[in-house]
Amino acid sequence: MIVWRDGEFVEAAGAVAADDRGFLIGDAVFETILVDHGAPAFLDRHLERMRRGRDTLGIARNLDAEEVSAAIDALARRKSFPGRAVCRVTLSRSGGPRGLAPHGSAKPRLYLSLATAAAPPERLRVIVSGRRRWTGASTNSFKCAGAYAENMLARTEASSRGADEAILLNEAGRVACATSANLFVVMDDRLLTPALSEGAMPGVVRGILLEEAETLGIEPSQSLVTPDDLLQGDLLLTNSVIGPARAELEGSPGSGGGAAAGRLIAAYQRRLDAEFSRRTGARA
Amino acid sequence: MIVWRDGEFVEAAGAVAADDRGFLIGDAVFETILVDHGAPAFLDRHLERMRRGRDTLGIARNLDAEEVSAAIDALARRKSFPGRAVCRVTLSRSGGPRGLAPHGSAKPRLYLSLATAAAPPERLRVIVSGRRRWTGASTNSFKCAGAYAENMLARTEASSRGADEAILLNEAGRVACATSANLFVVMDDRLLTPALSEGAMPGVVRGILLEEAETLGIEPSQSLVTPDDLLQGDLLLTNSVIGPARAELEGSPGSGGGAAAGRLIAAYQRRLDAEFSRRTGARA
Repeated sequence: MIVWRDGEFVEAAGAVAADDRGFLIGDAVFETILVDHGAPAFLDRHLERMRRGRDTLGIARNLDAEEVSAAIDALARRKSFPGRAVCRVTLSRSGGPRGLAPHGSAKPRLYLSLATAAAPPERLRVIVSGRRRWTGASTNSFKCAGAYAENMLARTEASSRGADEAILLNEAGRVACATSANLFVVMDDRLLTPALSEGAMPGVVRGILLEEAETLGIEPSQSLVTPDDLLQGDLLLTNSVIGPARAELEGSPGSGGGAAAGRLIAAYQRRLDAEFSRRTGARA
Repeated sequence: MIVWRDGEFVEAAGAVAADDRGFLIGDAVFETILVDHGAPAFLDRHLERMRRGRDTLGIARNLDAEEVSAAIDALARRKSFPGRAVCRVTLSRSGGPRGLAPHGSAKPRLYLSLATAAAPPERLRVIVSGRRRWTGASTNSFKCAGAYAENMLARTEASSRGADEAILLNEAGRVACATSANLFVVMDDRLLTPALSEGAMPGVVRGILLEEAETLGIEPSQSLVTPDDLLQGDLLLTNSVIGPARAELEGSPGSGGGAAAGRLIAAYQRRLDAEFSRRTGARA
């Protein structure tokens, strides 16, 4: 696999140093962006979150939309992907002397790679994990490699139970999010999703869905969500790769089959199509 | 820098792949071991903790004491270090398809590197961090790259306040540990340290100090420690690189100057000397 690293194409196999702080202690932030024919979806929203993480960690590296956009396009041109692709953007503080404290001597590095996006199943099977997400973590509002252990373990738990995804409750036993997705309970005229203060990630698709709900006359509610609330309507999981995807909780009697979830999925699809048209149109 | 990777010596610069899960999401466990003339201190204790992490993450890679010991010796022979050295041992799940769930196709990789151990200051300056350590994390009993963000941020906070280390309280506001050390409050006949259930790491030096205290007639107490308790005696920070080191809390009136802390430091030093003698003697 070829990756883009600070302006050059390099083999993935030797792209990272063994003393890279991203590798050693997760001193890195990242984003996962949906790409269509070299055009990234909602790049500004992704970069805004990534800059928040970069600033929290104090990594001194520019994150310029033009640079990232051009890099994605260049990667896409090198290899044609069947259908849509997923871009992983990683900013690592990189090398430096031994020890936890960053000493400022390292040159941070930006990595981009492109992979085929496997189509998600028609309906994701979801469990509630025994592992929890802590609302007090400094890293809940962005994606930090040094804070993914709990999510990874919960996803492994899901796989071992034959499920696609796992829901993480927070320390209070209320719903926070899934391991790589936010979640929504859709009723006829109301949309329920965990508040950011409950441990939810400020997701790109999450934000767009909340906007679209208002347009559709579905009242969005960012609030406290209990495991029981998950049974009160149609369950949607959202992230940049799967968009809003229908999900079914293990052991649940099944969704109410309301129409609102379908209207939300369609509305998001229109936003995504418009985004890709705008980007590829602007480039053409 | 040269690192040992699964039996071969490679340049650190190109040793890790950009799709290594350790790099991407911290899917790796590690240890930091003190080395003297190629001999590691307390290797069995380090490997025991590392195996616990490996098993929790489900990484299928042997961690054999003979292999690790021979690798450390070989690394030490390649380069002479002034005084003692520090070995970082990292086990990463390595590559695999995109996504959080490990798919089992990756070949886990073991990395070792050796660095000079800078002598710690006579007395470490310590602050209490505003960041917290969560007792509910699945990773508190071993060192996982995907769980180091909070520690790293607290250590950065310490540096920015002119201190060497930061103490992390847990979500209940009680003392858990420092960012890369355990801590002890030493009174004349009693030794106080946070219980593992409070978020303390089961540290190698911590374990030895608890054993030595009993031998010295100092009653060890693993319990609930409040920030106020930190002022009740001499403060020691412990990890494999610094051993038990005297520390002073910012804004504190200073230690009581009891003799017990010195006796504990001396007792640990004897254990360490005996360990190195045994290892280098066995090899000679």
